[in-house]
Order: sequence, then C-alpha cells, then structure tokens
Amino acid sequence: MRVRINQSIKVEDKVEQTIQVGLGERSYPITIGTGIFEHIGARLKALGFAKRYAIISDDRVASLYGRHLREILHGAGLDCELITFPAGEASKRLGTIEQLASKLAGQGLDRQDGLIALGGGVTGDMTGFLASIYMRSICFIQIPTSLLAQVDSSVGGKTGVDLAQGKNLLGTFYQPRAVFIDTEVLHTLPREEFLGGMAEVIKYGASLDADFFAWLGQKQKNILGLDSPVIMEMIRRCCELKAKVVEQDEREGGLRRVLNFGHTIGHAVEAASGYRLNHGFAVAIGMRAVAELAIRIGLADSSVGVEMVQLLRAYHLPIDIPPEFDRASLRAYLAIDKKTVGGRIHFVLPERIGKVRITDQIEEADIAPVLAR
Amino acid sequence: MRVRINQSIKVEDKVEQTIQVGLGERSYPITIGTGIFEHIGARLKALGFAKRYAIISDDRVASLYGRHLREILHGAGLDCELITFPAGEASKRLGTIEQLASKLAGQGLDRQDGLIALGGGVTGDMTGFLASIYMRSICFIQIPTSLLAQVDSSVGGKTGVDLAQGKNLLGTFYQPRAVFIDTEVLHTLPREEFLGGMAEVIKYGASLDADFFAWLGQKQKNILGLDSPVIMEMIRRCCELKAKVVEQDEREGGLRRVLNFGHTIGHAVEAASGYRLNHGFAVAIGMRAVAELAIRIGLADSSVGVEMVQLLRAYHLPIDIPPEFDRASLRAYLAIDKKTVGGRIHFVLPERIGKVRITDQIEEADIAPVLAR
Repeated sequence: MRVRINQSIKVEDKVEQTIQVGLGERSYPITIGTGIFEHIGARLKALGFAKRYAIISDDRVASLYGRHLREILHGAGLDCELITFPAGEASKRLGTIEQLASKLAGQGLDRQDGLIALGGGVTGDMTGFLASIYMRSICFIQIPTSLLAQVDSSVGGKTGVDLAQGKNLLGTFYQPRAVFIDTEVLHTLPREEFLGGMAEVIKYGASLDADFFAWLGQKQKNILGLDSPVIMEMIRRCCELKAKVVEQDEREGGLRRVLNFGHTIGHAVEAASGYRLNHGFAVAIGMRAVAELAIRIGLADSSVGVEMVQLLRAYHLPIDIPPEFDRASLRAYLAIDKKTVGGRIHFVLPERIGKVRITDQIEEADIAPVLAR
Repeated sequence: MRVRINQSIKVEDKVEQTIQVGLGERSYPITIGTGIFEHIGARLKALGFAKRYAIISDDRVASLYGRHLREILHGAGLDCELITFPAGEASKRLGTIEQLASKLAGQGLDRQDGLIALGGGVTGDMTGFLASIYMRSICFIQIPTSLLAQVDSSVGGKTGVDLAQGKNLLGTFYQPRAVFIDTEVLHTLPREEFLGGMAEVIKYGASLDADFFAWLGQKQKNILGLDSPVIMEMIRRCCELKAKVVEQDEREGGLRRVLNFGHTIGHAVEAASGYRLNHGFAVAIGMRAVAELAIRIGLADSSVGVEMVQLLRAYHLPIDIPPEFDRASLRAYLAIDKKTVGGRIHFVLPERIGKVRITDQIEEADIAPVLAR
C-alpha cells in the first residue's frame, strides 16, 4: 500500500490534504481542500505540466466556474481557453469528442499543451478520453465539481464515452497528472446529484471498509448539511480507498473489479431507464440487489441486507428497481455489460459489510427473482 | 537490438520467416511468407489469443479476401464475423469507429474476443484504434494487404483516425498480438498503391540503411516484377528496421521520429491535395524536399539529392510538389502537424543516404524556397 497523506496544511486559513496515487511514472497527487479553487492557477503554473491549457466543461458548469477558472489561470500567467459542450449524458459520445478535438486542432493545441476537465463524471470521462487520444495523448488535469466525480470518477484513470448499446463501451485507461478537489463547489450541486454521489461513497464502505460504513451512519446529519470538515474527511477516505485499489490493479485485471460493487445490476437498471435515472440512484438499487442476491445464495447473512437498506435510506437513496422497468430488457442489458466475459456475468457480492467476493457462478434461477422484485 | 530472425522454414514448399518485435510483455511476431494466408486460421487457433474474432475490412478487400479469411477461420474452428466499411481515407473518421463499435457491441463481442485488421493502412490504423478503445481494449491481429501496410503501418502500434484539420490527429499507441504478411496479396494490389508503398520502402534505406538503399537500386526489375523471394527479402528488411526503431522508442519520444523522414512536408502536401494524392507519392515528394532543404542549409552534399531523385524515379514516384498546389495552405498545414511542438516544426533531414538528423532549427527563409519549387 503506497497511499500516503503527504500533507495536511493550512493555506490562508483553509485546510487542505494531499493524497499521492502511486503508479510509478504515472503517479499523481489528489489535493482536497475547502476553497482551494482560487489557488489552482498558481499550482498549475508551478507544476509546469503544460504551457497552455484548454478547459473542457459543460455549459452549466462553465457558467458557474468555467470563466472564473480561465481568469484564475490567466492571472497565473497561463495561456488558456474554455471549450464547452451541452450538459448531460447524451453528450458523452464520439460525436462530441470529434467536435472538441476539432476545436483543439483549430486552436493549434499540440503535444506540449494540456486539458483540464472541469465538471462532473461525464466531463471527466470525456476529457480524459480526449486527452488520451488527441495527438496520441496529451496531459490532463481533473477538477471534479460533483460529489460522484470527486470520490470516484476523477481518480483512477478510467475514461470513456457511451455507445447506443451501453455506457462507457469505448474508452481507455489514462491517468490525470493532478486532481484538485474543492469541497466548496458542492454547495452549487443539485441535491439529487449530491445524493447520487453518496451512493458511490456508501459503495466504498459496503465493499471495502466496515468502519467507514458505520461512520457514514453516524455522520449522516453533518454530511447532508455539507459540514466542510466532515465532507473533506469523507472525500479523503473515499480517495484513499480508491487509490489503494487502483495502485494494485490499474487496468482492472482483478482487484479493481470490487469497485464495480452495485454496478453490474446498477448499469442495467440505468440502461433500462434510458439513462434518465441518476447513476448513483441506479448503483444504490444495484447494491441492494446484490445484497439480496448474496443472501439468497447463502453467501451473506440477512443483516447485510438490513444494514444496506438502512444506510441507503438514511441518504434518501432508492432501493427498489422501479416496477415499470421492463425485466426482459434489464436482463438483456446485463448480458452486454463490459463485466460480462465469455457470456458469463461477473457479480461483486457482499460476504459481509466491508468484504466482497467476485463470482461468475450465479445461476439464472437466482438472478431472475432478484430482478423481479 | 533485440530483433531476431527466429525462423526461416519451408511450409508445404512455401518459405516463411518470423521477426520478433521485442517490447516486453507487448512483444509480438511478424510472420512473412508467400502463400501463408491459408494457414492463418490454424495459427490463430494455436496462438489462442481469443475465442472469437471480428474481421474488419473495407468493402474492396472484403470482396477479395474477407469472406475467404472468414471461411479459413471457421475451418480452424474459430467463431468469426466479417464487418466492412466503405474503402478509402474518407472512412478513417470517428463516425466509422462508432458504427463499427456498435456492430461489435450488437454482436456481443466482449473483452475476451479480438479483432483482425484485414487490409491496407486505413483498415489497420482504424482497427488498431478500435481495438485499443473497445471496452478499454481488446486484442487485435494485423493482416496487411497493401505494401504500405506490410512495410510500415502494420508494425509498431500507431493507430488513429483523421480530423477535418489533419490526418491521424486522434489515436493511440497499441500493439497488435501478431502480424501476418503474405506477399501473394500484392498481386491484386492496384499498381499505384504498390508504387506508393515503395516510397515507404525507400524511406527506410534513405534514413537508416545505405546498403538497403543501394540494394533497392540494384533490384528494381525484380521488385517491380513482384519476384516473390526478392519482395519477401525487401519486406523483411523493412520490418526489421522498423522493429529496431520501435523497440527503442515505442511512443515516439525521440528516435522513432526518424521514421517521419519525408513525412513532415509529405503530410502537408497530402493535406493540400485534399487527401487525393496517394500517401506514398506525398512522402516521395517530401523526401525529395527535405533532401533539397538539407543541401540548402549545408547539412548534406548535393549527391544526396541526386541519389534520392534517381531512386524515386526508378520506382516511378513523383519528386515535385504539383505546381497547382497552393503554397500558403501548404505552409499552414505544416504548422498544425503533430510533429510541430510549441510552434516549431520538426524536420528529419538527411546528412547523407542512410543517416538523418532531427532539427527544429530551420529558418522560414529556408522553408519557403523549398515549398516554392
């Protein structure tokens, strides 16, 4: 385990912490703090990754933070432009990548320049993908502005876009050079998106860390109230857990698949909703479903289901597959998931809270009733 | 130098040779032979990279070899489909990648399956790119059917697609698991494409190997007559030279840029033609142009220009930028080339035949007259 908290320092009355993701020459720091946004220009200037940056952002985040970030970078003496695309998962396609790439080429960005992903999961996944393929790769920085992106998608180097047939079916493994997480931006995040992000937070506890799971139960009021020190602690613990896993299995050969806890059925639920259901909500439903599946096959005790439902409900997350969702198409989406290998679906099942097992040995007879609920 | 000719064996009266490209865990064999096409099914079955393959081919090559290859794979007991796209550089775009990827997903190809690039440079570059991003990478095999692809683009792992702003502006470094080169397929290659491929062959001699350059002059009749043993020898020497360079610099940090000899100006000429000029013809013009540039700045003796022009003419290749090409747009295309870094154009210039120097220290006053010729 090479995750270290390198620093916990006060900068102009703001506490910040740095976690190093140890991946050899692809290592990078995650800086977490409250109000660090204003300092990003100076940090990037000092880090010296690129002479010039293009900030990639959706139109919603651009209006909140994009133009401001451009000014901050200009203020630090960095050449920088802001390139936007329409907000929403519907943008996460190769067509948008082509439009963004054409703008980069039109503005003369070359291999010495870099990209900045400013936004949520869609922006981070797309910008990372674009950075990994533009001129056969240029550097990029993550500045996640949603809770989901801060605790999950901005760390670990998974990039991608969707196909009509499913989410993230095209992508690369490509690490950012640095991640900057400012907890302040969560105050402008729509409540539903914050709660969706909490599903991914709960995932870390449920699959990897029973203490953290219990802590989330205790701190529910502080977290839902966006109490800064508690939010910072929560994000730090998630990033540490994710970094530990990614360091051991960058390209998802084995261990990293534990991070798909709740995602196998979750992705299918999300797909069956036509991607109208919030990703985190789908993952919450998926975590409850695999808990039920684990109990059904005798892997887990029924208390796992009870605790899972309690914590999900505490964060106002859904636990049931909406009754109107067509079960046959749900089952079909499971079959084309990336986690399906050689026709067998891989499930990440809880043995208990904080411990999971990956298996492709689940009978159709056990899957159907869980989907039917 | 870890290039080795591992084998030179007779299989059913057919001579074949294998070159190993030594890239650690990404190493792979290039098998070169006459009539080896028929054995590819059995070879792939024995190699066991994937249980199921999708052959990607343009409609022209599919009609010549695609259905036949599918039968050969079926005959060897491999599950396999043939997926085609319209022939031509115009297909080399993200739109085609999305269509191909949707077909793969629709047919349920997963991470254990593989792709086969059957065709020329466009097919190989696109299939390699698709393999590198489909479900964040699946394995792929190269079966190049053009001379250009056999001696250049199928070896080394550069993949890519074009943007409106220029060729190969999006792509990855992604190595095939095996390359199969059958010299027999050159008999169905349009003559212009064969001659275009010869420009890349001459590039190896001019930039890396004076003996090979001289040999190409001596063997002109055998080569233009498609004399199998000589063609095989020629392809083998090219693959060895390329493998040596790629082994030392897989991701084009330095040495690999020598392989761009003739390509800096060549790409600009190609772009200025609206990509109607054969790539190899553009490279031939580009090689002549950098020879002139090297002579002009006193780096090379005038004999380099004479020898270059002689060999290019011997293979019926063009040496002059067509007078109707707009010089201002040519200059603009030079500026957005991937090889332009921080606004400075990198040129690969000959010091003598078989030896080059890379420099970004060329004055505008020396570039203009070479483009003006």
